[in-house]
Amino acid sequence: MKQNINIVKIGGNIIDHPRRLLEFLSDFATLKGAKILVHGGGKSTTQWAQRLNIPQKMIEGRRVTDAETLKVATMVYGGLINKSVVAQLVGYGADALGLSGADGNLIQSKKRPPHPIDFGFVGDVEAINSTTLRKLLKVDFVPVICALTHDGKGQLLNTNADTLATEIAISLSSHYQVKLCYCFEKNGVLQDVNDENSRLPVLSLEKYRELKQKNRIFAGMIPKLDNAFYARENGVEEVVILRAEDLVNYEKRVESYGTRVAAR
Amino acid sequence: MKQNINIVKIGGNIIDHPRRLLEFLSDFATLKGAKILVHGGGKSTTQWAQRLNIPQKMIEGRRVTDAETLKVATMVYGGLINKSVVAQLVGYGADALGLSGADGNLIQSKKRPPHPIDFGFVGDVEAINSTTLRKLLKVDFVPVICALTHDGKGQLLNTNADTLATEIAISLSSHYQVKLCYCFEKNGVLQDVNDENSRLPVLSLEKYRELKQKNRIFAGMIPKLDNAFYARENGVEEVVILRAEDLVNYEKRVESYGTRVAAR
Repeated sequence: MKQNINIVKIGGNIIDHPRRLLEFLSDFATLKGAKILVHGGGKSTTQWAQRLNIPQKMIEGRRVTDAETLKVATMVYGGLINKSVVAQLVGYGADALGLSGADGNLIQSKKRPPHPIDFGFVGDVEAINSTTLRKLLKVDFVPVICALTHDGKGQLLNTNADTLATEIAISLSSHYQVKLCYCFEKNGVLQDVNDENSRLPVLSLEKYRELKQKNRIFAGMIPKLDNAFYARENGVEEVVILRAEDLVNYEKRVESYGTRVAAR
Repeated sequence: MKQNINIVKIGGNIIDHPRRLLEFLSDFATLKGAKILVHGGGKSTTQWAQRLNIPQKMIEGRRVTDAETLKVATMVYGGLINKSVVAQLVGYGADALGLSGADGNLIQSKKRPPHPIDFGFVGDVEAINSTTLRKLLKVDFVPVICALTHDGKGQLLNTNADTLATEIAISLSSHYQVKLCYCFEKNGVLQDVNDENSRLPVLSLEKYRELKQKNRIFAGMIPKLDNAFYARENGVEEVVILRAEDLVNYEKRVESYGTRVAAR
């Protein structure tokens, strides 16, 4: 029987609130068994870039990572956020180990072609080195992975954290029974985005298509949900979209919290 | 018989020169067997702090690490420098893994008391978790360690990189035959600081005291040499002070490069 693993992704809405982040990390540290935390940090990167007078260019809601912005992302994701999270988790008793996709050749990516849109130093995942991850998990480390990858020739690249969490979950699914949790600031996928009580306990692909067609899914959620279904279709046993504060509650009563993504 | 390990420390004079850094990392990657790289990054931290308008206070030539400066150090040492070095080393075929002292609870330190001088968030090393290091070395990772430690309660602290390298070397000396190399920009310890040909192939404690008494040792070298003798007195088999460019040459012809620090 395959061992269980929790892969949890957190985004800017938790990372940028020191008190909520501490509470979340304290909860995460209590999760039993193998676990991995994946984090972004886009908002903080924007703030530090502003302090450094490095102009931020967005195209279709996505950041353009020029050379200077890549430095800031490397500092903020790889340094400030990653090391602060690791120090807190170690304080809470988890044997956290902070990693970028370059460390141990964990995640190799390819720089996105400059046409039709040049997003700069952005990498599309090519290979997850699950051997490296399993070596670390086997000796009970808790990998804390930031949204940086590398091209195998010394170049760091910026990669979406939801996508990273998804690819990592898929890569481990042949050796582990994987539960993938995307944590965010709402109760789950809502039928009505203005009503926190309209949470869908389960989201099927059919229902997702229906909600998209009716424009009832917030645009920012679409890449996350696409990732979620992609994970389900590629061996990940359980995928859930969850309020960060409900991480521990969800462990106890699955039906009462978050939205589980159904298999096809 | 104990396995050999090379512990190499590099400072700002290499880190801040992209071409020299690449050459150095390419050399380091060729070193056979277990190895660890320890790096600082004080100069870059100063430059980024200036760009961020965070005033830098020095007392007796040493940086005061206030809360904002600690953030910059965490970004620069832990993020920008550490992840760039790791990506390059992986590109050169080494299985590099970037770590701060918080990762895997590697290096616990105690915040220095504010009296007589308040250096802010500076940590004095209390314990090296050599079990964590040995777990990583056993599966052939190459730890790349930046000069950040933690207090065990979630607080990161700034720690001198020479001291870290020394403490790591000592902590591994009961399991490994340790060679500790402090790399810098000169041929070694010089009898005459203005004459690169006055390199001392070996420095005894007596000679060191004599040179200090005659003010022939550059002030900045004193903490490094104190660390070097401390390492020799505490189980480290070989300690050498070396021009970074000579790392590979030294491996081949010990007497012709650098200064070896003699045991008492």
